[in-house]
Amino acid sequence: MPGVGEKVDVLDHGFVRLDAAEATDLSVVNGARVSFLQFKDEMADRDHKLIRFLMREKHASPFEHNLFRFHVKCPIAVGREWMRHRWSSFNEHSLRYSEAIDTFYVPAPEQIRTQTGKPGAYTFVPMEGETADQVRGMIEAQYRQAWDSYRSMLELGVAREVARLVLPVGLYTEFYWTVNARALMNFIALRNAEAAMWEIRCYGEAVESFFATLMPSTHEAFVECGRVAP
Amino acid sequence: MPGVGEKVDVLDHGFVRLDAAEATDLSVVNGARVSFLQFKDEMADRDHKLIRFLMREKHASPFEHNLFRFHVKCPIAVGREWMRHRWSSFNEHSLRYSEAIDTFYVPAPEQIRTQTGKPGAYTFVPMEGETADQVRGMIEAQYRQAWDSYRSMLELGVAREVARLVLPVGLYTEFYWTVNARALMNFIALRNAEAAMWEIRCYGEAVESFFATLMPSTHEAFVECGRVAP
Amino acid sequence: MPGVGEKVDVLDHGFVRLDAAEATDLSVVNGARVSFLQFKDEMADRDHKLIRFLMREKHASPFEHNLFRFHVKCPIAVGREWMRHRWSSFNEHSLRYSEAIDTFYVPAPEQIRTQTGKPGAYTFVPMEGETADQVRGMIEAQYRQAWDSYRSMLELGVAREVARLVLPVGLYTEFYWTVNARALMNFIALRNAEAAMWEIRCYGEAVESFFATLMPSTHEAFVECGRVAP
Amino acid sequence: MPGVGEKVDVLDHGFVRLDAAEATDLSVVNGARVSFLQFKDEMADRDHKLIRFLMREKHASPFEHNLFRFHVKCPIAVGREWMRHRWSSFNEHSLRYSEAIDTFYVPAPEQIRTQTGKPGAYTFVPMEGETADQVRGMIEAQYRQAWDSYRSMLELGVAREVARLVLPVGLYTEFYWTVNARALMNFIALRNAEAAMWEIRCYGEAVESFFATLMPSTHEAFVECGRVAP
Repeated sequence: MPGVGEKVDVLDHGFVRLDAAEATDLSVVNGARVSFLQFKDEMADRDHKLIRFLMREKHASPFEHNLFRFHVKCPIAVGREWMRHRWSSFNEHSLRYSEAIDTFYVPAPEQIRTQTGKPGAYTFVPMEGETADQVRGMIEAQYRQAWDSYRSMLELGVAREVARLVLPVGLYTEFYWTVNARALMNFIALRNAEAAMWEIRCYGEAVESFFATLMPSTHEAFVECGRVAP
Repeated sequence: MPGVGEKVDVLDHGFVRLDAAEATDLSVVNGARVSFLQFKDEMADRDHKLIRFLMREKHASPFEHNLFRFHVKCPIAVGREWMRHRWSSFNEHSLRYSEAIDTFYVPAPEQIRTQTGKPGAYTFVPMEGETADQVRGMIEAQYRQAWDSYRSMLELGVAREVARLVLPVGLYTEFYWTVNARALMNFIALRNAEAAMWEIRCYGEAVESFFATLMPSTHEAFVECGRVAP
Repeated sequence: MPGVGEKVDVLDHGFVRLDAAEATDLSVVNGARVSFLQFKDEMADRDHKLIRFLMREKHASPFEHNLFRFHVKCPIAVGREWMRHRWSSFNEHSLRYSEAIDTFYVPAPEQIRTQTGKPGAYTFVPMEGETADQVRGMIEAQYRQAWDSYRSMLELGVAREVARLVLPVGLYTEFYWTVNARALMNFIALRNAEAAMWEIRCYGEAVESFFATLMPSTHEAFVECGRVAP
Repeated sequence: MPGVGEKVDVLDHGFVRLDAAEATDLSVVNGARVSFLQFKDEMADRDHKLIRFLMREKHASPFEHNLFRFHVKCPIAVGREWMRHRWSSFNEHSLRYSEAIDTFYVPAPEQIRTQTGKPGAYTFVPMEGETADQVRGMIEAQYRQAWDSYRSMLELGVAREVARLVLPVGLYTEFYWTVNARALMNFIALRNAEAAMWEIRCYGEAVESFFATLMPSTHEAFVECGRVAP
């Protein structure tokens, strides 16, 4: 169970690192107890029940008095879904202000999957080994060409913001993500879920493991209430 | 200069207490340096310049990777302005779930002021001593009557949520307020300002003193840039 | 079924009026169909199914491409709950910039209820007729005294923002509320609900009736999915 | 001056189309006049002054009671900056749910620029003609290869969400963007500005032209107040 300062590796070159946190189950309990002006210094048994009650009845505001600050490295394609979450703060590696780094996401052979089902009915069916290897080769070749083209343009003196136009969404990016437990649960509910793209689901799992470490009672209540954010 | 766990008294019975924080100037610097993937363990001289640059150029997102959790006690009239700030989390004492507490705001004699100027052109002109005393007496009398009426209804078994209808907006309330430095600066810019109601300005000052303690370089840049939130 | 420009009376002196709207079921369908770059000029049968699918699977963003602008008159006590909804825009009658208006909420006799149950387990038990009448008398008397005190202070030249301290939360206020269907459904789910205070529930019903008029298919799906906002 | 239903072409294949709007200067005026409970049916001369006053004094909330719904087509690189704006609603063409479309952004020769200055000090220096042509050729070649690789993978049956990993951020995407005038002004202030990437600035100009059409008095006040969002 990872904690503050620790890093969970995700995919071939990515990670989720918890840079800082001010997040405890007690902050939820005291957030709720403001209603009665009764505050506590530590969790008691009935406080776990209170957290479950809040989760079930969708009294969501007590889950907001905390902070998780993550440092994330993920493919741009994953980052684009991530940054649609608006009750969040982001700062990202800039391809205008600095040069790209030569790190791309190549799915493992067993992650090369076929197109199946219709939109919204997500089914993960891996391709057979030989085709998977062929596809990985195609992806890698294309990444190499894009990178060479990018570097050649930079050498010609082309502005980074122009040269990066050829870089693929499989390129890794990095960002800071600061979020409270309520928004975090919404992220986990949507992204560590069956209908989510496999890759972002891996990140959703990593994020959830930090959440479970720091706020175990809140996490337990979240799971018991069907993994629906309050 | 007050810090975490400390309390600043405001008005006759109110306070601002910083319950918890994860807020440093360094978090701003590292938030900005994500752009270049260069992180730092401590502030250097040029980082103060960076913070000023971010403030001046309205690069606001690096100011969001932090948290202040305040416990506030203030008159309802003040709280109503406060809770209009939306990039914030609140939990408040409930007059449905628990009984009111007999604490009301009576302005000090020198705070009893006249109506002057037109809306938006706020001028604070104190009334003369005798009238001020008379007005304070009227306010106190009215509070007492409202309180007696409230208590009588509770004794008749009336629901708290009905009985509280007679309670005045001069009654004190309490709440938790969780906020990041960007939203905090917006609050300070609007509320610790000349055009603000005198009472909320006192709270704005208290809040600002905590901000200045925890993020001195950010606060200095905020002041230098004309106290405008980025 | 009320529409744009119409007003629904609520409580003894309040109302909800829909000042303007740009809100159709079609906007939800087209919001979702952006995913496929297939847009439509009018609703077809299968689009009702699409809306239900979006609601059930919590694909919430297509419900945001619309606007309802309400003009609301309600007691301050109700307005305080209302303005905790943050994905909303508000402008309210100011008791700093203009004088209060002599309109107060007095619950009808059958709304004078007892305190029962514990917090979160809301039960509405009316008091018997005679006590109810007595309580209404107490509330009215207290309103009258507060009003007289307020007026006397204004006549002495006291600033409106000071004099209003004695005004009770049963005073009516007015505000503009602009909101999209997603945030509107969240409001309705929480406020037109059993656990809500009876008075705000009346406003929740009024708001819901406008929503049902303008976006009938979305409203139907909301009801079918258990009145949970997506 | 473009209005509702009209489309402004941007870059080589992009556009901004205003799909719907409920946005007038009068909505700002009435939003502000709620403070006094004085509403108007049409703009008068002094209302233009009121709008300027609100803009200058950063009374921002009256600018929120309106809606602009845009349909945008832009390169992914531009869309990534756009979707960082959080007081906004987005729905975007999905490369998981549907196939990509073969449309890429190739900067015009005079837009092929050199890397100059340091981050934050943006200077646009075009490259000389021959090199510009060479660079355009490199970009086009790379787009073609990426597209061929994408199509080949789809033909092998690879899932769209995997195949798209090789697609570059110069690919066009489309989305719906719904926003109010306050958030719109923030977008314009940051994106139709000297420090912004040239391409998003073109979109900022297009967006601003619609804003100026629908809310001419508000736009004028925005310009007079130094193009700073209130």
